Amino acid sequence: MKHGIKIVTIGGGSSYTPELIEGFILRSDELKIREICLVDIEQGKEKLEIVGAMAKRMIKKANLDWVVTLSTDRRDVLADADYVTTQFRVGGLEARAKDERIPLSHGMIGQETNGAGGIFKAFRTIPVILDIIHDMEELCPNAWLINFTNPAGMVTEAAINVGGWNKTIGLCNIPILFEKNCQAVMETKGQGEDLFVKFAGLNHFHWHRAFTNEGKDVTDVIIEELYNSNNFNDREEVANIRRLPFHYEQVKNLGVLPCSYHRYYYITQDMLDGQIDDFASKQTRAEVVMETEKRLFELYKDPDLDYKPEELSKRGGRYYSDAACELINSIENDKRTIMVVSTQNNGALSDLSDKSIVEVSSIITAHGAEPLAWGEFSAGPRASLQLMKGMEELVIEAATTGDYGAALQAFTLNPLIPSGTVSKKVLDELFLAHEDYLPLFNEAIAKLK
Amino acid sequence: MKHGIKIVTIGGGSSYTPELIEGFILRSDELKIREICLVDIEQGKEKLEIVGAMAKRMIKKANLDWVVTLSTDRRDVLADADYVTTQFRVGGLEARAKDERIPLSHGMIGQETNGAGGIFKAFRTIPVILDIIHDMEELCPNAWLINFTNPAGMVTEAAINVGGWNKTIGLCNIPILFEKNCQAVMETKGQGEDLFVKFAGLNHFHWHRAFTNEGKDVTDVIIEELYNSNNFNDREEVANIRRLPFHYEQVKNLGVLPCSYHRYYYITQDMLDGQIDDFASKQTRAEVVMETEKRLFELYKDPDLDYKPEELSKRGGRYYSDAACELINSIENDKRTIMVVSTQNNGALSDLSDKSIVEVSSIITAHGAEPLAWGEFSAGPRASLQLMKGMEELVIEAATTGDYGAALQAFTLNPLIPSGTVSKKVLDELFLAHEDYLPLFNEAIAKLK
Amino acid sequence: MKHGIKIVTIGGGSSYTPELIEGFILRSDELKIREICLVDIEQGKEKLEIVGAMAKRMIKKANLDWVVTLSTDRRDVLADADYVTTQFRVGGLEARAKDERIPLSHGMIGQETNGAGGIFKAFRTIPVILDIIHDMEELCPNAWLINFTNPAGMVTEAAINVGGWNKTIGLCNIPILFEKNCQAVMETKGQGEDLFVKFAGLNHFHWHRAFTNEGKDVTDVIIEELYNSNNFNDREEVANIRRLPFHYEQVKNLGVLPCSYHRYYYITQDMLDGQIDDFASKQTRAEVVMETEKRLFELYKDPDLDYKPEELSKRGGRYYSDAACELINSIENDKRTIMVVSTQNNGALSDLSDKSIVEVSSIITAHGAEPLAWGEFSAGPRASLQLMKGMEELVIEAATTGDYGAALQAFTLNPLIPSGTVSKKVLDELFLAHEDYLPLFNEAIAKLK
Amino acid sequence: MKHGIKIVTIGGGSSYTPELIEGFILRSDELKIREICLVDIEQGKEKLEIVGAMAKRMIKKANLDWVVTLSTDRRDVLADADYVTTQFRVGGLEARAKDERIPLSHGMIGQETNGAGGIFKAFRTIPVILDIIHDMEELCPNAWLINFTNPAGMVTEAAINVGGWNKTIGLCNIPILFEKNCQAVMETKGQGEDLFVKFAGLNHFHWHRAFTNEGKDVTDVIIEELYNSNNFNDREEVANIRRLPFHYEQVKNLGVLPCSYHRYYYITQDMLDGQIDDFASKQTRAEVVMETEKRLFELYKDPDLDYKPEELSKRGGRYYSDAACELINSIENDKRTIMVVSTQNNGALSDLSDKSIVEVSSIITAHGAEPLAWGEFSAGPRASLQLMKGMEELVIEAATTGDYGAALQAFTLNPLIPSGTVSKKVLDELFLAHEDYLPLFNEAIAKLK
Repeated sequence: MKHGIKIVTIGGGSSYTPELIEGFILRSDELKIREICLVDIEQGKEKLEIVGAMAKRMIKKANLDWVVTLSTDRRDVLADADYVTTQFRVGGLEARAKDERIPLSHGMIGQETNGAGGIFKAFRTIPVILDIIHDMEELCPNAWLINFTNPAGMVTEAAINVGGWNKTIGLCNIPILFEKNCQAVMETKGQGEDLFVKFAGLNHFHWHRAFTNEGKDVTDVIIEELYNSNNFNDREEVANIRRLPFHYEQVKNLGVLPCSYHRYYYITQDMLDGQIDDFASKQTRAEVVMETEKRLFELYKDPDLDYKPEELSKRGGRYYSDAACELINSIENDKRTIMVVSTQNNGALSDLSDKSIVEVSSIITAHGAEPLAWGEFSAGPRASLQLMKGMEELVIEAATTGDYGAALQAFTLNPLIPSGTVSKKVLDELFLAHEDYLPLFNEAIAKLK
Repeated sequence: MKHGIKIVTIGGGSSYTPELIEGFILRSDELKIREICLVDIEQGKEKLEIVGAMAKRMIKKANLDWVVTLSTDRRDVLADADYVTTQFRVGGLEARAKDERIPLSHGMIGQETNGAGGIFKAFRTIPVILDIIHDMEELCPNAWLINFTNPAGMVTEAAINVGGWNKTIGLCNIPILFEKNCQAVMETKGQGEDLFVKFAGLNHFHWHRAFTNEGKDVTDVIIEELYNSNNFNDREEVANIRRLPFHYEQVKNLGVLPCSYHRYYYITQDMLDGQIDDFASKQTRAEVVMETEKRLFELYKDPDLDYKPEELSKRGGRYYSDAACELINSIENDKRTIMVVSTQNNGALSDLSDKSIVEVSSIITAHGAEPLAWGEFSAGPRASLQLMKGMEELVIEAATTGDYGAALQAFTLNPLIPSGTVSKKVLDELFLAHEDYLPLFNEAIAKLK
Repeated sequence: MKHGIKIVTIGGGSSYTPELIEGFILRSDELKIREICLVDIEQGKEKLEIVGAMAKRMIKKANLDWVVTLSTDRRDVLADADYVTTQFRVGGLEARAKDERIPLSHGMIGQETNGAGGIFKAFRTIPVILDIIHDMEELCPNAWLINFTNPAGMVTEAAINVGGWNKTIGLCNIPILFEKNCQAVMETKGQGEDLFVKFAGLNHFHWHRAFTNEGKDVTDVIIEELYNSNNFNDREEVANIRRLPFHYEQVKNLGVLPCSYHRYYYITQDMLDGQIDDFASKQTRAEVVMETEKRLFELYKDPDLDYKPEELSKRGGRYYSDAACELINSIENDKRTIMVVSTQNNGALSDLSDKSIVEVSSIITAHGAEPLAWGEFSAGPRASLQLMKGMEELVIEAATTGDYGAALQAFTLNPLIPSGTVSKKVLDELFLAHEDYLPLFNEAIAKLK
Repeated sequence: MKHGIKIVTIGGGSSYTPELIEGFILRSDELKIREICLVDIEQGKEKLEIVGAMAKRMIKKANLDWVVTLSTDRRDVLADADYVTTQFRVGGLEARAKDERIPLSHGMIGQETNGAGGIFKAFRTIPVILDIIHDMEELCPNAWLINFTNPAGMVTEAAINVGGWNKTIGLCNIPILFEKNCQAVMETKGQGEDLFVKFAGLNHFHWHRAFTNEGKDVTDVIIEELYNSNNFNDREEVANIRRLPFHYEQVKNLGVLPCSYHRYYYITQDMLDGQIDDFASKQTRAEVVMETEKRLFELYKDPDLDYKPEELSKRGGRYYSDAACELINSIENDKRTIMVVSTQNNGALSDLSDKSIVEVSSIITAHGAEPLAWGEFSAGPRASLQLMKGMEELVIEAATTGDYGAALQAFTLNPLIPSGTVSKKVLDELFLAHEDYLPLFNEAIAKLK
């Protein structure tokens, strides 16, 4: 019998960590833990210590004997890890601010996981995840890699298809939010109990259908309620996305429910207008989050705080860490829970190749995620799904080879980046801005100077 | 709240029915029933009454208020049915005896669901299932059709892809047997607890993999134990299949575990040798079952018998009715149980088209079966899977059009039927023998006279 | 032996017709014609008579005995036709002007076959092509339909997949231009002789590779010469597309050569800037062509003009009619020429379904086009190809059902139309502007008023 | 301008060589040759010299200045080769006799390219072709490999997909025979002129359709004439296959025309009966050919014989060498002829993967074969096509790894080998019989002793 698991959290100095710790504490009856290692980079040491101290207080309060280890070198703690979770942000919020502000300064969507910004976040992150895998091969060859570093879909695809780490599962909080959303809509109709919400697509680019526990497909009902009535203006969604209305007729033609990030694609221009205002008033998401973070760390410093403070939920990643804890719990205890994760397609989505990483409703078992077959989409979602997967492949190609042409191709295809001279301009500006975090591209960047 | 469900069982006069009744009784806490209608044809009236009386005794003993209705006209009882289960046998055991003896008389496998016999069982059964669907459209348009009439895969494919009845699920007892088999093997290794056994393929033609609750793939371990050792000679399998050993090296190359029926394909000649002996001694399966049936009905006549007699388990369909009850229970209560059923592929098996009916591990929900994605097979199983699906399509084409050429094509492709003059001879002999049950082929049969 | 073929040209009053006639005359040795019927609508009668008279003069000059018939009712002339060619424009150049100016007035690409304008051209044209097919079924059930009405890909897909007219082939002049273009580039390298240029994609959205007659793949060489040097600024292309440079690095990553229309997608913003200027100076393509047309018809009126005037080549459709004549010649004489046509995919492009209509290098035989297998594209072209095909399917769905949601979905997906409120605005404005030609949408349009 | 090509023929001592030389001579106007090297193994030196001398006489008679070189070491002559053709037979006719007689001695089809014999021919040949490729990489990296060593499909697939030699084309004479066959049938109907016969499938396992030069699909007409009438008993086919009649109804259901080798699959039992007779009378094909060969070499020895003798056509490979010469001519001169060759699928057959090697009508260009898209087959041919491709993959896997399980799996799947104990017995007997030519299997063979 195993004497509890060891979890290594890379990016452990994040302000999210208390939620993660809370999630583990809530599951302590089922999930036996022996050690939690929080790892961060040297520059994040101060934050790591603040968060680490708080984590220890929370665990102590819960009367648990878990060891909390802090480290600024993952190689010191990876040995014998059972689960490695990743929540790091290469370049920090400063890099995110550039991902947002540079595209916006040229009149295009600036966002950390979509468009030009998302592509550059992938460029910075993918080489790091591959380095982590390299260390894991050596130090903890049987560990699971639970990735919730964004852009989670591309990072997971790189980990599995480039890094060859099959025991990787990517995770996002958006599906849970939308499941709750559907539930709430159907509750007003008296049919919300134990709704089955089935998702398929890519990370931040998936669709869902909902079925009642009497077997009725209520997708259309929810579409009507959400997009053809005035009742649901205040339905909860993710904090970090402007809640502009979708076009009802377009969603109806989809035949499936879109996720919040689809706003960037389905109502691009309206989303852009809002972002331009934020840009002008220095209120882009990174800028807002910097403020929130500052406040959170002030709170965390309080040596008496031994529970997750309310303010954390405003941070945007609500349910994220909770999902991660439940995922680890399901794997560890072979619970066969249905969760929505990024995993290898294996035929589940007929419109993509078997090897592609998709975000899809899956049974979570001790041997990994078993995706539920979804079949084909109708022409609308299929077309954009296939476009985005191609774009993702180009991003991964560029991120792992340093090929400038692949990067430009990804920019050319991305629906949030107007193609042409302006596209190359933004690309080059971002390359120069993020130079320090893009060693593979140094040859290409040198030519731009 | 629903006032209990109505179940119509076509072929209700079968000797299996007591097991079905027992299955419902065992689930009476969860599964609320108001009426069970047992339907059989006029010629089966006597058996129907014997079995019906026994069913009533069993239900009474269990202190349940379920109404049991007997009928020789399904149209009298289909109205408002919630579930229609099918377990009928067109032409009875006499037809089965012909399916077995005629091919054997020409030196080829005679079996009720495989080879020439299985093809003719499909020819007789498919038009009847389509007629049943026709009645259901009119009388119970929302009912589920739970098919366990063999050949279950082809009958289910015809029901869904020809009859258009999407709410059809096909069921077989073999996967349960093999799950138990894997469990038993692994128990000897101390790892049998809550094994995850994942199936994919076609009815009576599927393969499986097994994983422990610690996430270890133990498929290879089980292959070694079963086919490369002497320990498991007495592993339980289905009663109606000769337990000859597979070639270890061939199974090892498969990389997945075969089902019992694969013996007909993987060791055809050896199976045939055994059947030839049975044929000579008038002990083919139909002949044996006729005897068993006779004994069972003698037992059922006993007005004091109010429980399923032991003898029934020898009948071959062990766990069959049990599986059917659990399936209905899972649908009715949206239990999301993992079961192995015949349902539409939808991408789960990448080697077949999305529309094909496959037998595959699925989550059973109130809205139907959600198959788990399996992905691609290696060359060995893939090749025979694709062959068999094409053959099945030809059988369904012939069964629904009366096309002699399609029937001969199916015979030509079927691995259990040597092609050539002999194949046409057996085909023609079977057409003449089953003429009464093949109205669609009457033009083709006329030419043979 | 056949006594010459009968060709019916719908839209025969077009200014292109003299080129078509010239093409037939040039092939008169091989291609035996008995009658050419020029058909146009009542409003086009004057032009039809001018062009018809000229056609007769050209044929007379060539000493041919072909009958030229003029008609304003296709039903009068379709009987016994061997080939029906379509070159009509529903709504005339006035409609084209709206397709261009309305999108441009909202700051998006205005073009007759791409973007919002192309979608509306499809909406107007597809119902008419289906009506023509309806008449052909009755009057000339064995005729070939040679479509060069734009958007040729979608119109051909509707003709085959909706209208069921399998003997439809779509045609475009762009591939010929690009073949000549490659030839010219390679001639400067001394390797232009009999280049093999292989195309695949969709109409106005295809790519090509080039091979020398020594078997060398020179695609990369041509990419370098065209997009990474200053030598080829004056390479001939189509008259109606602004010749802005592609980004070299992006084309290099493609690995295949783009067609001229790809400029709208690969350098959208730059193309738009140019169009905005044209828009401001009332020099959009429709406006320019109206002028050219006026001049052409003045020329055609000259009772002494009996040859194709030079001015016609400026019209944009250069080689178009020539290609049509060669296509008819190849079919009629089973010439097995390699041509690039719109035909059913049948596996040629692995990235699209077998049923899709694609534009692809094919052998032209008496039984139709046999496409050459192309296989898979790399991620870049694949992604946009799959996007565009989905968008095309939505356009056809909308055009044949009048579904507003499908139209809005097509707008949302189209890379040339920024999605959001602005997209719906342009859609609605175009619906109102083209109302007279969109009877299927009248319900949807009524709601907009 | 090139100074003529160099052709290296491996297995040059074959009795076929005079036909090959004749083919080159007939094309000497078009095809400029500078050297022909005939290579054979040490044991074949005598034959090589006889054939070589004869080749020289033929060339001299034709007044050509081609150099003929003879060698027993291919490495001596491969340098600068433009074309390497392979027509060798590992183990000679003695090995072929075993491939035929051993299976027959157990009552199953014995044939050199199909069934157990064909599988062992592949086992012996594939390692040798990979060795040749190894030498070519070093000595003539730009040469084309024209393979007509049987089993040509599997050998070509190994060369391309294992050896990575993309410039390989496989060739067979069967398609030419069937094209002529269709032509002859249609000539009796006055429609044979320039028939277009389109093939798709695998080597010795393909189907075809025929179209007149007026565009009429006459496949059904030919099926009727060949299989539903008594007129065509004497239609020419390949010398080495017993001409038993197919079942008309089965072929009709196929909807396409089978090739001669399909007899082994479609009328297995009848073919077997014939072979059993040959076996008993020591007249299996190898035994007959040994006699023919003996006579041929006696003829070749005649120092006055300077033309291909009539007797050669009885050898079975009629048109084979002719096809090879035309293939080389088409590549060399970029003739874009339509020929049927084994090449990479690339989507041409939608029922197989893009990477599979298929035998398919193709345009032969200087850069290789461009297959014509065929699309999907109906269920009958599709099912057996997919079965055979899987079996071929297993054969190649076994041949390149020495894996006994893969070999047994191939035997189990092959429709000409009854599965079970008997199958393993034949497998083992063949392994022992061919031991000298199967070094990769030595470990597996050791276990059998």
